Amino acid sequence: MNTNLLRSVMYVASIFGLYMATAMFIPAMADLYYKNNDWSVFALSGFMCGGFFLACALATRGQTPQFNKRFGFLLVNVLWLVFSLVGAIPFYLSELDLTFAQAVFESVSAITTTGSTVISGLDTAPQGILMWRSLLCWLGGIGIVALGLFILPLLRVGGMTFFRMESSDTGNDRPFARLAHFTRAFVGIYMLMTLTCTIAYDMAGMSHFDALNHAMSTVATGGFSTHDASFAYFDSIALLWIATIFLVLGSLPFSIMILLAVKRRLNIVRDPQIAVFLGYLTVISIAVGVYHHLRNGVPLDSALSHSFFNVTSILSTGGFASDDYTLWGPFVVVVAFFATFMGGCSGSTAGGIKAYRFVIIFNVAKTGLKKLIYPNAVYSVRYGDQVVDPETIRTVFLFLSCFIALWIVGSLALSAMGYDFLTATSAVATSLANVGPGIGPIIGPVGNFSTITDPALYVLSAMMLMGRLEILTVLVIMMPIFWKN
Amino acid sequence: MNTNLLRSVMYVASIFGLYMATAMFIPAMADLYYKNNDWSVFALSGFMCGGFFLACALATRGQTPQFNKRFGFLLVNVLWLVFSLVGAIPFYLSELDLTFAQAVFESVSAITTTGSTVISGLDTAPQGILMWRSLLCWLGGIGIVALGLFILPLLRVGGMTFFRMESSDTGNDRPFARLAHFTRAFVGIYMLMTLTCTIAYDMAGMSHFDALNHAMSTVATGGFSTHDASFAYFDSIALLWIATIFLVLGSLPFSIMILLAVKRRLNIVRDPQIAVFLGYLTVISIAVGVYHHLRNGVPLDSALSHSFFNVTSILSTGGFASDDYTLWGPFVVVVAFFATFMGGCSGSTAGGIKAYRFVIIFNVAKTGLKKLIYPNAVYSVRYGDQVVDPETIRTVFLFLSCFIALWIVGSLALSAMGYDFLTATSAVATSLANVGPGIGPIIGPVGNFSTITDPALYVLSAMMLMGRLEILTVLVIMMPIFWKN
Repeated sequence: MNTNLLRSVMYVASIFGLYMATAMFIPAMADLYYKNNDWSVFALSGFMCGGFFLACALATRGQTPQFNKRFGFLLVNVLWLVFSLVGAIPFYLSELDLTFAQAVFESVSAITTTGSTVISGLDTAPQGILMWRSLLCWLGGIGIVALGLFILPLLRVGGMTFFRMESSDTGNDRPFARLAHFTRAFVGIYMLMTLTCTIAYDMAGMSHFDALNHAMSTVATGGFSTHDASFAYFDSIALLWIATIFLVLGSLPFSIMILLAVKRRLNIVRDPQIAVFLGYLTVISIAVGVYHHLRNGVPLDSALSHSFFNVTSILSTGGFASDDYTLWGPFVVVVAFFATFMGGCSGSTAGGIKAYRFVIIFNVAKTGLKKLIYPNAVYSVRYGDQVVDPETIRTVFLFLSCFIALWIVGSLALSAMGYDFLTATSAVATSLANVGPGIGPIIGPVGNFSTITDPALYVLSAMMLMGRLEILTVLVIMMPIFWKN
Repeated sequence: MNTNLLRSVMYVASIFGLYMATAMFIPAMADLYYKNNDWSVFALSGFMCGGFFLACALATRGQTPQFNKRFGFLLVNVLWLVFSLVGAIPFYLSELDLTFAQAVFESVSAITTTGSTVISGLDTAPQGILMWRSLLCWLGGIGIVALGLFILPLLRVGGMTFFRMESSDTGNDRPFARLAHFTRAFVGIYMLMTLTCTIAYDMAGMSHFDALNHAMSTVATGGFSTHDASFAYFDSIALLWIATIFLVLGSLPFSIMILLAVKRRLNIVRDPQIAVFLGYLTVISIAVGVYHHLRNGVPLDSALSHSFFNVTSILSTGGFASDDYTLWGPFVVVVAFFATFMGGCSGSTAGGIKAYRFVIIFNVAKTGLKKLIYPNAVYSVRYGDQVVDPETIRTVFLFLSCFIALWIVGSLALSAMGYDFLTATSAVATSLANVGPGIGPIIGPVGNFSTITDPALYVLSAMMLMGRLEILTVLVIMMPIFWKN
């Protein structure tokens, strides 16, 4: 590992650290506006971090090395670690009296758009803190989409990517290929979605502050609320449907929205994961809604509204809740458990295993079974109208195996710390998939992570970060071969 | 699908049906000896089935078609279905008053060497029925080893096989290659193991009848007991260790025992799955034992004895129990849950995902991560001293995906029927992996399946059969392409 590469990674990280330090003045202003003493925490943190990262940036200036895979892998890991630690500082210094592990967990949960929280008493928490949570979540959403669009494809992790779409779309349309154009389009769309969502929430009855905060954490499929009761606090069917729509939008590949914005063309058929994601979302929501209606006598329209909202919340890896759906019956518990793993589309803010991997696994299984009958026949695994290369297939199964292995290791760790089966296994699953709530009385949809012990919070923070970075990105830098020259 | 092939499959199935009809006279004699009225049930069933299958055999006589994959897949499915249904007849007609679904479940559980039972009151059940359960289990053990040694390799399902060993071992030793020689050796070893186990149980304090029945279900890694309390009834550490040793032997590839018998050579290093299986068995047993000692104050020697016995029981897919280990603490519940999936070695009577698949998955993951760093480097996936071909790798992941998919589908079905999360998910897992006990108050190590409803029993019976036949064997014949000419 050469030092120029490390220096350069530190430099880029320092620049992003500076951005985050600047962002701290937003909650500081919110606290000033609402006359909370906490404004000084954000101002102090902002100046501290700003100074530190400015010094770092100056010390590590120099020529940027050629982009290679090692640089990419290392940069991504260092960036998300810096985001997490810098984000934790205001939580740790705030009047909420969090331990360092809790502060780190809350920050990681925000940056990874997981949305699990260790803070109980959100309704009376200072606005600055609430704003900081939503802001980290929102920035984490931008970060992950950018990562998925621009960096992971170069590292061959994360599969279906913008770059493949780009090459087929730009044959006769040069300007579209430019990175700057992409970036502007996607940040613009993200901001527009947030604004639209804020207005919709506002019109449907939320306060301005609640509307903005919920909108930021909705489009990022984060799941932070400004109330302990999450969406149950508002008791509004309209709000549930607004959230459902924006959570779904946040789970679709941003590329199709960029295409729509730049080329005025909506072609969702091209990417089969969209139909598959919308398909399983609809089927599961209807199944759960009808079951809730039949078993618990809830009127069908209300049952379906709550079912669509909560199922979308899990599948989009948003993680809001409007009710303790684990009380709807054992079928819903099992559905919620398995849905936690599934996730949305790649190229979005959603986490989990993701729809495109299911498409590939299903097609591999179909051709594999055929090959058992006719071993000499040639069947190619397809993704939409394209043939999937063996490397992509291998990476999908590599991801799946590592996901399961981490889930098992994490569950064993949490159970060894004394947590019951459901809490341990669902906490690790919800962290790895960046969903938010788990199952069971402690961390279920009406619970939170405030009573989880520090060692367990560290394990779960690690799981959230690994899950967010598509696991392989983190495992790669743990291989000794990565550090050899 | 040509009719000659179907006829021929029916013919082979009829011959095996005749063998089973003959076997029914063994429990009939046991009942006569112990003066139970049930002897007439077995005699009647024996004559009925004997007559029926004799007629079938005569009607479907003819030239055996050339062995091909379709014939093989169809034959295996039909055989195990016939075994299951014929085995169920005496249960259904007996004085135990079982429903048809319960009789089928008990028979499938025996034939697949799962060892789950719907019968409560084993201690007072007629000896003939107990004998029939053990006998089916024992025959199921022979059946699955024969399948693994001789048929699955031809179908390219089930992976690491005897035939590879054969080709490398017979270069300078011709007689060893003969199938008849193999068959004699393996049936001989199986009978010798059963006899040794019977004598060991007998000497350690079991009654003759208990010793024989437990020995038959131990070497088959079945798990049926003649007492509701399973091994807890005997309260003997010596018996636990005898069972542990024979369960481990039953989980090792029979090929190494055949090699030992025929060539007087013990070389366990050649097959990496053996070291891996013994490795995870030892690590998990010690971890659970030490945890049990530290958490519950049980003396270390007793904790380790019970831990080795119960962990081996799960990993070998035996499924005996000496205690309600789910009360030892949450860590043990999580361990037992994940251990249920793992299984023993291929080429044995054990079920589950199996050690050789873990070896391959681990090596695929290792080379896959390296390839992410150096995409142009050539890394081959190894299994011991051999390079694993892409087809085997594909089949391993195909199996894994289908295993997980069936587990999810089955769990959803059981939860929709009203079973709680732990019961639903662990019942399906324990059935698919042919282990035996699940987790939770109903089907846990001290429970049984007697209160499970008929529809759920059918689902679980299907899962046991699919798990036993390495899943793909069953899924293949469900493909429309299989039935096309």
